[in-house]
Amino acid sequence: MNKATAVANPNIAFIKYWGKADEALNLPANPSLSMNLAGLTTVTTVEFRPGQPSDAVTIDGQLVAGEARERVVTHLDRVREMAGVEQRAWVASRNDFPAGTGLASSSSAFAALSLAASRAAGLTLDEAALSRLARLASGSACRSVPGGFALWEGGADGDSYARQVAPPSHWALVDVMAVVSREHKGVGSQAGHALAPTSLFHAARLAAVPELLATVRAAIGARDLAALGQATEIDALAMHGVMMTSRSPLLYWLPATLVVMQAVRSGRQGGLAAYFTLDAGPNVHCICAAEDAGRLVERLRNLPGVLDVLVSGPGAGVRLVDYHLF
Amino acid sequence: MNKATAVANPNIAFIKYWGKADEALNLPANPSLSMNLAGLTTVTTVEFRPGQPSDAVTIDGQLVAGEARERVVTHLDRVREMAGVEQRAWVASRNDFPAGTGLASSSSAFAALSLAASRAAGLTLDEAALSRLARLASGSACRSVPGGFALWEGGADGDSYARQVAPPSHWALVDVMAVVSREHKGVGSQAGHALAPTSLFHAARLAAVPELLATVRAAIGARDLAALGQATEIDALAMHGVMMTSRSPLLYWLPATLVVMQAVRSGRQGGLAAYFTLDAGPNVHCICAAEDAGRLVERLRNLPGVLDVLVSGPGAGVRLVDYHLF
Repeated sequence: MNKATAVANPNIAFIKYWGKADEALNLPANPSLSMNLAGLTTVTTVEFRPGQPSDAVTIDGQLVAGEARERVVTHLDRVREMAGVEQRAWVASRNDFPAGTGLASSSSAFAALSLAASRAAGLTLDEAALSRLARLASGSACRSVPGGFALWEGGADGDSYARQVAPPSHWALVDVMAVVSREHKGVGSQAGHALAPTSLFHAARLAAVPELLATVRAAIGARDLAALGQATEIDALAMHGVMMTSRSPLLYWLPATLVVMQAVRSGRQGGLAAYFTLDAGPNVHCICAAEDAGRLVERLRNLPGVLDVLVSGPGAGVRLVDYHLF
Repeated sequence: MNKATAVANPNIAFIKYWGKADEALNLPANPSLSMNLAGLTTVTTVEFRPGQPSDAVTIDGQLVAGEARERVVTHLDRVREMAGVEQRAWVASRNDFPAGTGLASSSSAFAALSLAASRAAGLTLDEAALSRLARLASGSACRSVPGGFALWEGGADGDSYARQVAPPSHWALVDVMAVVSREHKGVGSQAGHALAPTSLFHAARLAAVPELLATVRAAIGARDLAALGQATEIDALAMHGVMMTSRSPLLYWLPATLVVMQAVRSGRQGGLAAYFTLDAGPNVHCICAAEDAGRLVERLRNLPGVLDVLVSGPGAGVRLVDYHLF
């Protein structure tokens, strides 16, 4: 058995990870807290093949080369070293949502790859070890390993992984995602992280995170949407404030991004309790209670510039499945 | 002679004034630097009338009441006290551009009112005294008193006024204003200033201003558009970063605001040297060299959501004129 398939969900952070304390180890400049998104999935199959000359990687059916392939190969090398495996691998990965647009595709991608590759290599890693492994490929991927709501405190290498703070069943929170672009963003998150310290706001945001994080954590415990939402909006705007004032500045927003943000605000004034957040991209995640998701979808669907609306509740952690992509 | 008419231009700040060190005295939390806008004017006539029971104020032909009138009456009271005048006044003011939309109408309004009212009351104030007087009504108005490029360092009450750093003829810089809204903004600048200290970014912005200001000042001296523009964009985005993270948050941008900002950026990549800045409102000021203004106007005019494009070079200081509005 040198083949395994894993499924993972991307996650949406209520307190963002932006900026690294250690670039090589993907140690974050600040702790972050997220929810897995059940409605979006990445499925990844890894097979180590005797005699194969080099790693081959397909994403959504396309053989990939260059940087995208290199990131996967580097991660496979980590797994090979842990497992004492020499063989090259065939990797196939499929997303059911647009990648590279601020819907956190790298989080689900590297969570799924970590589990599939480690199992295919004969390893059985516990959740902490798997989260730590995923982190080395993409920081936010460590948060897609546990199910439900996950906290990544940061810390030193061995201690830097995400832990569940509440299971998916704890709170029927919904993320209504307004997709305003399916294009890959111009500056990827990895390059963006490196720019964070050049912003005049970076240190101020880091100093503000502990209080915002405590608010979000308590709000999840108490299922308090208003407290969660207010802190989440502030943190997202703070992260984009850091991005916008980086040298050079990152302005991920599109006009339709602002259309959605303003619609969420005006909806709230009209009694529809929803709050927005944005990752490093133009798409907008709108957080609301499950019973309000239908109204929110209706509100967002017809806005100018909104290409699609995706809906997701809290998702499970990364898991093995008994089918393969090839 | 108890009647006088003054003309003033609004100004666009390259380094913004946001947040107050003293609310009653309009002392700023940080120094600011601006250029008067020749293409936009406010004309204000003031007449003190024996026997008139109370101050009457018209703006753009409409008799105003409530807060807008109160601000004018309070300013007339300052002038009456300085001059030892008891009479009530008739005030008429006309703008040739939309007011209350982030085109800095209060700067030209209170610069013109300060000069017209003080002269109508028999006072002859020098530029510093006039700038100080204007500041008491609206901080940014002090910068519309000197001509050309003006620096308002802040300081204590008596010393807090704007000084010219270069005359209008120094540099044929042009502000191409993309008007995306003619509506009065929901939260005025005065209320906005009071929110600044609630932002997690306020202190960080204040700490960054001296270096940005030095850059802008040197860039004006050297007529270096790229240096001016880069610092101006960062400062504007920093101010809006403060606004967005205030409690409660101020999000002045409209979708078309972002359309224009992105068009300026992509134009720059295509060789059109222009830089944006925004005051407390959704309209976008695009700074370029005079020889590029035509191309920039063409580029902005047809963008979706752009209602109008105004063009202005560096303007003179506030001045008396020999005609009256009534």
